[in-house]
Amino acid sequence: MIRLTQMVQKTGCSVKIPAQELKQVLSALKPNVSDLNLLIDGGTFDDAAVYKVSENMALVQTVDFFTPSVDSPYEFGKIAAANALSDVYAMGGVPKLALAVLGYPLATLDKAIVQKIMQGAQEVLQLAQTHLVGGHSIDNADLIFGFSVTGFVNPQKIWSNQGAQGGDLLILTKPIGVSALTTALKRGLSTEKEIEIGIQSMSTLNEIQSLLSEDNIKGIHAVTDITGFGLSGHAMQMAIASQKTIKIRYSDIPCFKGALDILEQGLLTKAHRTNRAYTQEQSDWSVLSETEQLMINDPQTSGGLLISVSPLLANEILDKLKIKFVNAAIIGQVMDKNGESVTHVSLNNDRVIEKSIDKLSAPWVIYEK
Amino acid sequence: MIRLTQMVQKTGCSVKIPAQELKQVLSALKPNVSDLNLLIDGGTFDDAAVYKVSENMALVQTVDFFTPSVDSPYEFGKIAAANALSDVYAMGGVPKLALAVLGYPLATLDKAIVQKIMQGAQEVLQLAQTHLVGGHSIDNADLIFGFSVTGFVNPQKIWSNQGAQGGDLLILTKPIGVSALTTALKRGLSTEKEIEIGIQSMSTLNEIQSLLSEDNIKGIHAVTDITGFGLSGHAMQMAIASQKTIKIRYSDIPCFKGALDILEQGLLTKAHRTNRAYTQEQSDWSVLSETEQLMINDPQTSGGLLISVSPLLANEILDKLKIKFVNAAIIGQVMDKNGESVTHVSLNNDRVIEKSIDKLSAPWVIYEK
Repeated sequence: MIRLTQMVQKTGCSVKIPAQELKQVLSALKPNVSDLNLLIDGGTFDDAAVYKVSENMALVQTVDFFTPSVDSPYEFGKIAAANALSDVYAMGGVPKLALAVLGYPLATLDKAIVQKIMQGAQEVLQLAQTHLVGGHSIDNADLIFGFSVTGFVNPQKIWSNQGAQGGDLLILTKPIGVSALTTALKRGLSTEKEIEIGIQSMSTLNEIQSLLSEDNIKGIHAVTDITGFGLSGHAMQMAIASQKTIKIRYSDIPCFKGALDILEQGLLTKAHRTNRAYTQEQSDWSVLSETEQLMINDPQTSGGLLISVSPLLANEILDKLKIKFVNAAIIGQVMDKNGESVTHVSLNNDRVIEKSIDKLSAPWVIYEK
Repeated sequence: MIRLTQMVQKTGCSVKIPAQELKQVLSALKPNVSDLNLLIDGGTFDDAAVYKVSENMALVQTVDFFTPSVDSPYEFGKIAAANALSDVYAMGGVPKLALAVLGYPLATLDKAIVQKIMQGAQEVLQLAQTHLVGGHSIDNADLIFGFSVTGFVNPQKIWSNQGAQGGDLLILTKPIGVSALTTALKRGLSTEKEIEIGIQSMSTLNEIQSLLSEDNIKGIHAVTDITGFGLSGHAMQMAIASQKTIKIRYSDIPCFKGALDILEQGLLTKAHRTNRAYTQEQSDWSVLSETEQLMINDPQTSGGLLISVSPLLANEILDKLKIKFVNAAIIGQVMDKNGESVTHVSLNNDRVIEKSIDKLSAPWVIYEK
C-alpha cells in the first residue's frame, strides 16, 4: 500500500517557508492602498485577513496547504480541510466557501488516491457547512493539498491575537507535539494506528462558538490557532500583539503521549530549529530542558486554539470546551507589562509590532515548570 | 543570470492537471449541500464560483497558480497576478482581495528572486485596485506562484459562458499561441526580448468594463477567458453551456507572430495533446492543417476574453476594446442549434451539461478557414 509520508521530503506544516525568510521576501513590497474596510491586513502571510462589506458583515480570507503528514489519503484530506478552516474559526468567523489548492505527480500517483483525499476533505467541509466551490490543480513533484477559505464574521465580533488583558487565563484546546508523532510515522518508528489520537486531533474542527453561551463569548479577549510556528511562536505573537507578558506553566500544557520521547530521540523537523530561532529572543524558557524547549517549538498541523479569557469565566468555558476537546487545559496567564504604554498597535501588522518592541522589553513569554 | 523557465519541467498553464483526469478525481465527491445563494458552483475546478451575500452583491471566488512561463521574475509575478485576476473580470466582477499561493526551493532559490516576483505581482494587483491580504508559502521543488482572488459582482449582472445567443458575434481580445512562444523561450530558441509582445499580453489585465458604455455592456451575452484549455476548449465550453453551435473563422483569429512556425517545428507541451483529446469529439476542425489544429489547442497563460455580443453592437465594442487590446478581433459567430430544446442547464455544471449532450449533437464548434 502506498504511504503518503514516504512520497515527500518534508511533511505537513514543517514544509512552510520560515517566518524570517518570509519577512525578507516581503520586505520590499509596497504597502496596500489605504482602505478603511480592510480591517485586518494579513500581510504577514500567516493570518487571515478581514474585509468589511457591510455594517454587520466582513469577509475572513485565508489560505493554507501542505504536504501529507499522515499516510492515509482520506485522513490527509480531512486534516488539510480542518487545518485550512481553522484560521476562520480562530477569528471568530464562520467558514462558507472553499477553493482547493492541489498539486500531485500526475505520472506516478494513482488518481484513486487523490479521489480519497478529496473525499476526506469534502466530508470535513460539509461538517463545517462550507461549500467546495472550485480550486486549481497542477502536476507537481510533491503532493500538496489545502484550501483557500472565505468565511463571514460580524465586524464587531472579530477575534484576533491582539486584546489579551492582564489577569486573563489562557486555554489551549488541543495537545501539542503532533510533528513529533508524524515524524516518527514518516521514519517508520510508529504506525498510523499508534498515533491515531494525533490524527483525530488534527482533523477536529476548531469550531467552538456553538459550545459556548453569548456571555462566555464576551469573556474571550484574544484567540489564535497554533500552527506552523508552534505554541512558542503563536503565544509570542499574541503577547506582542496584545502588549502583555504571557506566563505559561509547562506542566499544564497538554502534550500527545509519546511525543516527548520522540523529541528526546532527536527526531526533528527543520521547523523545530527555525521556530526556536524565531522566538528565542522574545521568550524565556531557561527553566525548561532541551527536549521541553523542542516541544513548545514543535510545529503543529491543524493545532488547537489558544484562547485568552476573563479569569471569572475560564473554568466554565474550559468545562464546555472539554466536551469536544477532551484535553483542553488552562496553561497560563496574561500579565500587564512594565514599561511605557503604547498608544497604537495595528492588528497583525509586523512592522508596527516591531516598533512597539523597542518600547516594551522582552521576554514576552515566560515559561515555568 | 538565473532563468526561471530552466528551473522547472513544465511552464505556465501547461502544468495544469488535464480536464479528463480531474473529472475522474472529482467524480466520487458528494455534491455541495443545496444553498440558494450559491449562484455558480465552480465545481469543475476551473471557473470562478459566485456566492450571493445580498441583493446587489455577490462574491466571485477563484484560485490560479503555475510554474514560470518566462525567465524574468518581475514579469512572472505580473503575469501570475493578471492571470489570477482574469477569472473575476471574465465573470463581470471587480477583484478586491488576493491571497498569494507560493512555493519555491528554499535551499537553492535566492530570496531576491522571490522578492522580485512579489513586486511584479503587487504592481499588477495595485493597478487592479486589489489588496494583497496574505497568502501561504511552502518549500517546494518547483517554483509555483499565483493567487486566490475574491471579487465582487452584482448578482443581476454576472457574465458566464452560458448565454450566447444565435446571431451573436464572437470577439477575442488577445492573440493565441503564447505557449508556443514560451516553449521556444524555455528551449533557448528565442529570447525574452523576441517574445516581448507575448509577455506584455500575459500581464495585461482583462478588465474591459471601464472601456465600455452601459449599453455596450448590456449587449454582452456570454464571456469566458481563454486559459489552459486553449481557444478550442473554452469555445467548446461556451457552446455547450449556451447550447449553441459556434463557428470560428481560423483566418480571423489573432495569433502571436512566430507561434505557428514554432508549432510547425513540433515544439509542443503535453497540454497541446490533452486539449485536443478534450475537445476533438465536440469540434469539427477538419478544414484546418495539423499545425493550425495545434494552434487552436495551444494552452494560454493569462489569455484574452472570448465575448459573445449582439451583432448590432459588435463593431462598436470591438473599436473600444482595441484601444487597450490592439489585436482584438471578431473571430466567429454563434448559431442556434438544430435539435430538441433543453429546458434546464445549470451554469458551469459538468454533469448537467453532459446530459444535454445526449439531446443535442456535436460538433459544438465548427472551424472554417
